[in-house]
Order: sequence, then C-alpha cells, then structure tokens
Amino acid sequence: MTSFKIAILGCGTVGGGVAKILLENADALKIKASASLELTKILEPYPARSSKRHNLPLALYCGTGKDLSADEVQKYLREILDDSTIDLIVETIGGSGQEILNIALQTLEHKKHLVTANKALLARHGAAIFSAAGRHERAVGFEAAVCGAIPIIRAISESLTADELMSISAIMNGTSNYILSKMEAEGRPFEEALAEAQKRGYAEADPSLDVGGGDAGHKLLILLKLVFGLDLSVESLPVEGIKEINSDDLAFAKEMDCSIKLICYAKKSGDDVFATVRPMMVKRANSLSKIGGATNAVRLIGRYAGEYLFCGAGAGSLETGSAIVSDINFIARYGTKAVRQFALSACRFRSFNEFAFPYNITFETEDIPGITGIVATAIGKQHINIDTVGHNRHTSDKAIFAIATMPCTHNQIQEAIADIQRHHPSCLVSYPKIIPILE
Amino acid sequence: MTSFKIAILGCGTVGGGVAKILLENADALKIKASASLELTKILEPYPARSSKRHNLPLALYCGTGKDLSADEVQKYLREILDDSTIDLIVETIGGSGQEILNIALQTLEHKKHLVTANKALLARHGAAIFSAAGRHERAVGFEAAVCGAIPIIRAISESLTADELMSISAIMNGTSNYILSKMEAEGRPFEEALAEAQKRGYAEADPSLDVGGGDAGHKLLILLKLVFGLDLSVESLPVEGIKEINSDDLAFAKEMDCSIKLICYAKKSGDDVFATVRPMMVKRANSLSKIGGATNAVRLIGRYAGEYLFCGAGAGSLETGSAIVSDINFIARYGTKAVRQFALSACRFRSFNEFAFPYNITFETEDIPGITGIVATAIGKQHINIDTVGHNRHTSDKAIFAIATMPCTHNQIQEAIADIQRHHPSCLVSYPKIIPILE
Repeated sequence: MTSFKIAILGCGTVGGGVAKILLENADALKIKASASLELTKILEPYPARSSKRHNLPLALYCGTGKDLSADEVQKYLREILDDSTIDLIVETIGGSGQEILNIALQTLEHKKHLVTANKALLARHGAAIFSAAGRHERAVGFEAAVCGAIPIIRAISESLTADELMSISAIMNGTSNYILSKMEAEGRPFEEALAEAQKRGYAEADPSLDVGGGDAGHKLLILLKLVFGLDLSVESLPVEGIKEINSDDLAFAKEMDCSIKLICYAKKSGDDVFATVRPMMVKRANSLSKIGGATNAVRLIGRYAGEYLFCGAGAGSLETGSAIVSDINFIARYGTKAVRQFALSACRFRSFNEFAFPYNITFETEDIPGITGIVATAIGKQHINIDTVGHNRHTSDKAIFAIATMPCTHNQIQEAIADIQRHHPSCLVSYPKIIPILE
Repeated sequence: MTSFKIAILGCGTVGGGVAKILLENADALKIKASASLELTKILEPYPARSSKRHNLPLALYCGTGKDLSADEVQKYLREILDDSTIDLIVETIGGSGQEILNIALQTLEHKKHLVTANKALLARHGAAIFSAAGRHERAVGFEAAVCGAIPIIRAISESLTADELMSISAIMNGTSNYILSKMEAEGRPFEEALAEAQKRGYAEADPSLDVGGGDAGHKLLILLKLVFGLDLSVESLPVEGIKEINSDDLAFAKEMDCSIKLICYAKKSGDDVFATVRPMMVKRANSLSKIGGATNAVRLIGRYAGEYLFCGAGAGSLETGSAIVSDINFIARYGTKAVRQFALSACRFRSFNEFAFPYNITFETEDIPGITGIVATAIGKQHINIDTVGHNRHTSDKAIFAIATMPCTHNQIQEAIADIQRHHPSCLVSYPKIIPILE
C-alpha cells in the first residue's frame, strides 16, 4: 500500500482535530483512502501549548518544542514546501491576507495538494488558487470551508451532478443561528444571546464576522462558484447580519407562522442569478425554519429531483477536522483525477433588490388615525399586492405595524417608502425594516 | 474528450428518466463526467409504448419498434453484452431472480460497469455482484437503490470517510411514510390512506413490499453492508411493516409528543450491530418526526461530527434517474478507481430484541379495577423502569392503556407479558402492541 504524506500548517482548533483523527483512526482511514496516510509534520508557532491541548506527540511539531520565532516559522515552512515526499498540505492557519494566499499558492506550485477550511481565503482568492491548482495539476480540498461536517461540497461536485440546481437557501453561520434560536425561544435580547453564545464558545471574542453576515457570505460565494459558476468579489454580494433583529421582529414573525433565520440565498432565473445573505422570515412549512442552535443546513432545489436538504454540525474541532480528513482520503484515493476545474458559466449576477420576493415590512409610525391607510396606499401605488397587515403594537409613544407583501422587489418597496416620506414627512419615525419571507 | 457509451436495459419509469436526462442534459453532463456520455442502445420489450411515454427517439431502441419476443430480448441482450464499445450498462428492469442476477454478473464479466436502482437484487445478491465487480475491475453504481435522489451512498463512501458512523435511523419507504402522514394528519384509517397513496401513484397495485417493510429492509441491508461491513441475508433482518398501526397507536403517540414512522434502525455498540425495520414512535425533537409525505430521510450519528441529516425525494422517474446518471458521471470520470471493495468487518449482527430501547406498550384489557397495577407489577418484576403510564381509553367493552418504558429489551417485555398471561390469564384481550420510542 502506498504511503501518502501530510503536513499540517497551524494546529489550533481545526488543525488539532485533523491531527487527532489522522492518528486515532489510522487503520480505518487506510481502507477509505486506499493509502497509508502519514502525518509527517505539524508547523505551529506554539508547539507545547498545541501538543498539550490536543494530546499530540510533541515530536510531530517542527522545532524543539519551544515557541517558534517568525523566522523559524519561515524556515520550517520552506523545509515543508521543499520536502518532495510530502503529498498534501493542510492549511489551518486562517486569515485571507497576502501571506496566507502565498502559502496556498506555493503549496500548489510545489506540487502538493492543498486542503483548507479557510472560507475567507477561498472567497477572496478562489480564482487565483483554483487556477494555480489546475496549472500544477493538484487538487484543492475545501469540504470543511462550507458548513463544517456537512458534506455539501462533495455532494454538489460528485453526487448531484446529473441535476441542475436552481436555488440554494441555507443556514451557514452557527453563531447567528444559535443567537436567533435563543432570542426566539427565550425572548432574550440580541446582546444577551450573543453573550451566551460567547460563553459557550459558539462565538468569537470579536463576533462581527459571524453576526454581521460576512462569514456566511464567504460560504455563499464558494457555493455560487461551485453551483452557478459565478466568480464574484466579496464586496459585490449584498450581505446583512442579524444585529438589527429585535423582539418586535420576532413577534411579527411568530404571527406570520415564521422563524427568523440568517439565510444565504441564491436563485437562478434564466441566465440571471440573484443572491444575498440576509435575515429572513422562514415559514414553518420550510424545513430550514426548524433548524435550531448551532446546526447548519443547506436546502437545494434541483430541476429533476426537487428538494434536497443537508443538515449537520457547522463547526467544531473534530467536526471540521473530519471534513478535512475526508478531503485527504478523497485526494489520496483519486489523485490528480480529483483536480476539478470550475467551469465559469454565462450566468449573470444580479442584485437581489431587483428580484421579486415576498417581504415583511415593519413600520414604526406616529400613532395617528389613518396611518395604515397612508402606508397601504403608497404600497399599492407601486403595484405591490398586500398579503396581510399585522397587528398594531404600541410601545411607548409609537405604534408599529407590519405589512406582508406578495412577491415584489426591494426596489419597489423603497419607492413606496420614499413616496410616504415625500407626502407624509413626519409619519415614519424611522426607516422601515424590510425582511424577505422565505416560503 | 473521450466518449463513454451507455446501454439501458429496461425503459420503464426509472430507465425512462435516465434516458431523458442523458439526452436533455448532455452538454452539462460532459463537464461533470469529464467525458461525452453517449446513450447507444435501449433494450425494452415494448419500445413503442416506452418511446411514447418518455418522448424518446424510437431509433434508440433495439429492434424495429415492434414489441420484442423473449427470444429477441435475449438476442439483443447478447449483442449489447458482446459490444465491446459499450462501457456501462444501466439495469432498470427490476426483480431479484436468477435471470436478473445473471444479467448483472454478465455485465461485469463482459468488462462493463453496472449501474442499478435495484435494491432487492443488491440486498439478495450483493455479495456475488460486488465480488464479480472486484474480480473484473468494474464499478457498481447503486446510488439510486437507496433513497432515490438522496446522495446517501456516495455521502457514506466518499464523504463521511473520516468519521466512524455509530448509528443509522432512516425513513426509506415513501409509500409507508405517506400513509402514516395521512393517517396522522387526517385521522384516516390505514386502508383509506393506502387507497389514496395508490390513487396518487405512491403505492404499487400490490403494496405488500412497501407497507410490509420489505422494501425498506432491502435498503437497510445495503446500508448495513456499506456502513458496518455486514453481509446479512434478507431473512435475517427483523422487519415489521405498518399494517397494524391504528388510530389508538397514533393517539398514544400524540400524547407522548411523538409521530409514528416506519424506521430503518441500526446501532453499533462495541462490535455488536443491532438493526431492525419497524414502526417507531419518534419524539418530536428528533428531526425524523417532521419528515412528512413521500419524502425520505437518513439520520446518521458519527463519532466525530455527531448528527448528519439527509432528506430528499425517495422515488420518481427523474428523481431516481438523476441518481443513476450521477453514478454514470462518477464512473465515467474516475473509471476503475471507482471500483470499491467492501471491507467486511468483524462486527456481529445481533437481534434487536436484545437491545435496550425505550418502548411504548399498549395493553388492551378487560376493564377491571386493579388492571394497571397487575401490568405495572409484572413489568417491574422484569426490572423495567416505567417512564409514563398513558391515559386509559375505553372502546366498546374493552379498555386500552399504554405504558412507556425506560430503555429495556424486547425480550424483557415479552417476559413480562408472559408473566401476566400466566398469572392473570383472562385480563389481556389481545397480545400487547410493542412499539419502540426513538428519541
């Protein structure tokens, strides 16, 4: 049986999980990988801490066990890259700057396969990385970059290959979903739910990439490339996080028989693809509404087979580690056949604001008679059909009420609001909150 | 680009879906398969009917378009097998008799890959077929044989390869699930719900394989082989269908916050594997309880990544067809590398009756004072802890009540019932119904 040699760069939460599975599960992996997987080197600036934390032999780490200086890290990185016996490098350092991009590119240039969980890197520099991979005939494994343990990447690239996928709707940020679930189930405000998530280790000390929607956006960008052949910049995807969601929104959602979820959404319509990351009110009949806690879920609609739903752990050391090791198995087994070219499509990316969708609009208004009529009239003037008008709620001196629309564009709604502001400048206390309704 | 030639044997519901996708989607498939897929021949005894039904060119069919005699079918089958330019045969004839087994084996002997949706064939003759495949270095694709469009086979064999799967619980028979969903939602009796399923095309004219649990059993046998390396005979798997489920069971289930589902269950415990197909009361917190209608779902628990859930269409022409074409893509792309050997494991199959599980036991009794005490005492004597005692229901002259137990074995329960029958021979009106509770 051939030996397949692996080095891990960065042995924190995820890298540690990878190393643990490789060592603990070696016999079973031999059969799955059709090769003997050999973890030869771990490059980590803090070997003693990492070795202790993950219960890994210190001898596997580059250096003498002492913390490494930046120069030493560079020296050992060079050694690993120059070691022609190493077949594959696991990049679990993180970040998306030039330095980490260089490591990825050099890995491929040195004829080594690359496996990474780094969604930010692939979202920003995917085109460069995949092009280098094709040039050097080496594979890039990134199962772990989207939804941790859910095998969504290989499902799309190796399993659902006979179907034509028409839409994606997904919960891909466990932190946000945990927070929203807490807020909904226990009526707690955002800040409290966030603090709880941080306490339980679901949220980073700086949670902005999670609750701001950026992390979910990175994952959706990867799926947009894989499913629709779109190569977009991070900046071009409209992304909105969950920070603005409050108890009024959750109450209106409940009234509408919905849960609020941070949804990664993409829909193909002819050659156009509309996509966004936004909080949406998800109807209870939609399976995504029932995904609670830190779980991730991806719902795909295929032209031939209709709905597919995949759920599982979106994060965690061994969870993400198992996805990385499954990539290693696949690449060890299939070798250069596992090198996939991403066919760029003729699809055109279009703003979600131009896409017709049902919306819930919450108006905070001066509590004056006739206000519902003013708002409803302005909406009707934009040819938006109203589905339901939610119950008025009175908080302090203000009144809020919600209108659920039939499918219309965000642009139409903005026109209606502009009309209200023009003709009744004092009646809206704040800019209305506009939340898509996912059926 | 190399050409990859395909013949289809049997062009009914599923074969027709395969042909349709191959013709309709040819350009996209080229990229996914890294080859130009060419459907060269369809062997079908009723070409005119099939061609019309699926809107396929009659020229693709063997013969002149007229119905084929048995001799003609044999002649054309021989031609296809002897045609060395054909790379892969799709078997969508069905059945699990000697004749169809011979076709499968001859396909492999003639150095052609085999793709099939035939769960009965693989459940009965999987060992012979996979051994022939290994000998002749040809792949067997069977994604479509388990849960139609859900990519569960490749998920297990190519994606979850770093995890150690500890349990399977799955809804794999759409007909039964449709019937149970109807009974639960609309309070209709089994026969009515079955008739409705037949009217809608979800159930065969002879539904015994579906509602008797046999079809689900075939699929579980395939998963037992794939996941745990167990090679079992069809007869050795304990299988019970849904025919005995009535409105009382559904009422008790509702009281217990459960839905009744036909569950394919397998659990590894040390080197033992316990497995069965049975109706179970599924707690609402378990995602399987929410799977309604003809949808299929598979829930796996992994040592590293915890819960995985896969849902999708379990049957249908294009749904199952798309799974078959995904197998064709995979085999065309990876060639002989796609030939998998099933490692038989040291696992031992054990009767589910010896496995500790929580149960709901429904007793139909003479309505006499003290009956609950008699039953509860007999249960206690077997060291079974009672979780809850359900409300008594009175129908005609009898009383029924249910006891939910803490985990215990079916054998223990049978002992308790025997004890009641011995000491209070007249108090049980019928043999109690014993339904596992899936949490």
